[in-house]
Amino acid sequence: MEVLGVLNLGDLAQTFSKMGMFPVFDLAYYIVSILYLKYEPGEVARRSPVASWICAMLYCFGSYILADIFLGSCPVDYFQYNSHILLASAVWYLIFFCPLNLFYKCVAFMPVKLVLVALKEVVRTRKIAAGVHHAHHAYHHGWIIMVIVGYVKGSGVALMSNFEQLLRGVWRPETNELLNMSFPTKASLYGAILFTLQEAHLLPVSKSTLICLFTLFMATTKVILTARHSHGSPFILIESWVCHLLFGSPLGGGEEEHHVAPAPAPIAPISPVKTKEDLGEGTRKRKSKKAE
Amino acid sequence: MEVLGVLNLGDLAQTFSKMGMFPVFDLAYYIVSILYLKYEPGEVARRSPVASWICAMLYCFGSYILADIFLGSCPVDYFQYNSHILLASAVWYLIFFCPLNLFYKCVAFMPVKLVLVALKEVVRTRKIAAGVHHAHHAYHHGWIIMVIVGYVKGSGVALMSNFEQLLRGVWRPETNELLNMSFPTKASLYGAILFTLQEAHLLPVSKSTLICLFTLFMATTKVILTARHSHGSPFILIESWVCHLLFGSPLGGGEEEHHVAPAPAPIAPISPVKTKEDLGEGTRKRKSKKAE
Amino acid sequence: MEVLGVLNLGDLAQTFSKMGMFPVFDLAYYIVSILYLKYEPGEVARRSPVASWICAMLYCFGSYILADIFLGSCPVDYFQYNSHILLASAVWYLIFFCPLNLFYKCVAFMPVKLVLVALKEVVRTRKIAAGVHHAHHAYHHGWIIMVIVGYVKGSGVALMSNFEQLLRGVWRPETNELLNMSFPTKASLYGAILFTLQEAHLLPVSKSTLICLFTLFMATTKVILTARHSHGSPFILIESWVCHLLFGSPLGGGEEEHHVAPAPAPIAPISPVKTKEDLGEGTRKRKSKKAE
Repeated sequence: MEVLGVLNLGDLAQTFSKMGMFPVFDLAYYIVSILYLKYEPGEVARRSPVASWICAMLYCFGSYILADIFLGSCPVDYFQYNSHILLASAVWYLIFFCPLNLFYKCVAFMPVKLVLVALKEVVRTRKIAAGVHHAHHAYHHGWIIMVIVGYVKGSGVALMSNFEQLLRGVWRPETNELLNMSFPTKASLYGAILFTLQEAHLLPVSKSTLICLFTLFMATTKVILTARHSHGSPFILIESWVCHLLFGSPLGGGEEEHHVAPAPAPIAPISPVKTKEDLGEGTRKRKSKKAE
Repeated sequence: MEVLGVLNLGDLAQTFSKMGMFPVFDLAYYIVSILYLKYEPGEVARRSPVASWICAMLYCFGSYILADIFLGSCPVDYFQYNSHILLASAVWYLIFFCPLNLFYKCVAFMPVKLVLVALKEVVRTRKIAAGVHHAHHAYHHGWIIMVIVGYVKGSGVALMSNFEQLLRGVWRPETNELLNMSFPTKASLYGAILFTLQEAHLLPVSKSTLICLFTLFMATTKVILTARHSHGSPFILIESWVCHLLFGSPLGGGEEEHHVAPAPAPIAPISPVKTKEDLGEGTRKRKSKKAE
Repeated sequence: MEVLGVLNLGDLAQTFSKMGMFPVFDLAYYIVSILYLKYEPGEVARRSPVASWICAMLYCFGSYILADIFLGSCPVDYFQYNSHILLASAVWYLIFFCPLNLFYKCVAFMPVKLVLVALKEVVRTRKIAAGVHHAHHAYHHGWIIMVIVGYVKGSGVALMSNFEQLLRGVWRPETNELLNMSFPTKASLYGAILFTLQEAHLLPVSKSTLICLFTLFMATTKVILTARHSHGSPFILIESWVCHLLFGSPLGGGEEEHHVAPAPAPIAPISPVKTKEDLGEGTRKRKSKKAE
């Protein structure tokens, strides 16, 4: 931390938090998002390119669509940025229809994927901060609205996954992202709370510093989780205690407890519960094998 | 009626229709609404407090959310009233997580519940009147819009129950509130029509009198229905005739006919058809037994 | 074409494209739309007239509702036109509850139906053009938004059929209009693209001429398809080639290929795939037989 202090952390954070996201970071966001779409069941790309393209757009721009819906603006507002849509459409085309599956193999190659995943988290953090700021602009004391808008901006398509799946003819009513929150969704919620506290001047840090720190946390955690094919969450220990205190939940959450390392290790090892992305990874491997 | 005239009914109605709803009446509304949520299947409160909290908010503020959606404003607009949200959240916490289930046992105790149910109907009537008035403000001659907005303000979460259930992982596509209207939903529709007629100056009563009379009708009926664990409806007789005349439906609706008392009795005895709330009551009883 | 030139095509197109749609064309639109609703499974008209009426309104005004949602305005905005709603409600009442099913028999009589279908396509084309124009007004360079809004204005209730069915207690998650596009939905998409290109001055025709030509194409095709009880599409040949080039789909789409006539014939004969409307026709026939 002293080294960072010498390097003038404040200026660095300021510069970082003002950096443009288009096209490099946004491109990484589109690639990783549509990669996850490819892992999903329902082979609609060839059967109905229109449905597949719409799903891809929801994966890339779902957070804007949801935030616009929640704030009562035009849901297709973001589609006025033709260059963003064209870039995302190009990524969709390359991932699904590139000859020899070449593009997919490149971006799904682990070292490349880890870089892209890290870049995606940079965009996610900025979206949360922008969402909270936007809501603050519309409702000066609407703290709950700020959390909600920051949350949907961070979680994006995950929060409407039931309806996104429906587009592909898949219907799984027994679960949804709110019943079984994945790490990015949970982190978006906590991030939205943090940014709202900052906007309310209840956190003793500047917004740019918070963006910097939260980006670092998100990128590191997501890269480690992706590298380990894990779907654990660094929050398990804290959550288990808070839920025990507040809601009287049984401490530790059963089997998962055995895997949770003691306090200093921030990342929980592979959870035994297979989640959506887990299955996606499995599918990916099978698909890769078929392709080889 | 003469006695009421002596008591200066007009002034009384005026005062009553201007009375503030927060916090007493709103509190009753939140308690009764979240009580019905607790009766619903899907034990999500402990599994996912976030999903449960969101459901509770939909139960308490669904009418505002729906009316905002229908009128094209921001659906989370009402969440700017932090004190209302905090009060509803406190009720949610107490009903689901209070030690020894104490709060639940208190408010579900029949005499207390009857008072709360009566207070809830006061809020419902005011919401219908406010919805119609709001729509009248936006569309001066949009009589149908007025009825729609008043209707959704009165019915609230019931009209989006399919999607609210989905949040809890429950999916019952074969039915919905429009196919099997419960008494409050029906009454909201008729109330919305009455208030729209009043707004169009087609009813020879002032709005405050109409609010007063409709509140009296709703509170009395709902209290009697709750006390008798009944899901009948005082409209069955009239509806059966109107449907017969307009739509050629078979008169009387089969078995229900036997239970319907002749004209003067306004409340139909227990209907043989088990509805959502019926099941809820059953579940409640089983739950109480388990808790004891 | 020379004859049309002599007849002053430009003026004719101008007059045609400015012609009022209410009440004749709109009436035809309502009749044909509610006719398709009657073919749908789920006998709710007698069980719940309210749900049935709402479905009928979605069939008639779904395109306005969807376009309003997509552009962030009030979804019930169109319901301010009381005369349109009353006319559509009258059609709904006559089709579902007319004594002896007389009205239904008249409008479902093939020659009458063909005229109504042609008139409906006139309205559809105008809606697409109006949708694109409206979106152009809101987003001057939002070409994608224009296509989206034109598309939903043309397709109407088809795009929300999953949710419209849910109102009637029917749930078919395995399919939707985007996975299996019917001819009108596809044509609306292509029409929306054409009108957007025209709005962007990339098509060397005036808007009124485009409206005229597209109406002619739609009306002719839909009348032929209806007369032949067919659900093929004149686009199959082109689509099959484009999909082969762009998405590497197998050429021709299997069995359908045998039925496709060589280039000059614009209408593909009866497709072996039974679609929604196909089933509707079947149901209609059975119903007519029962009625006789």
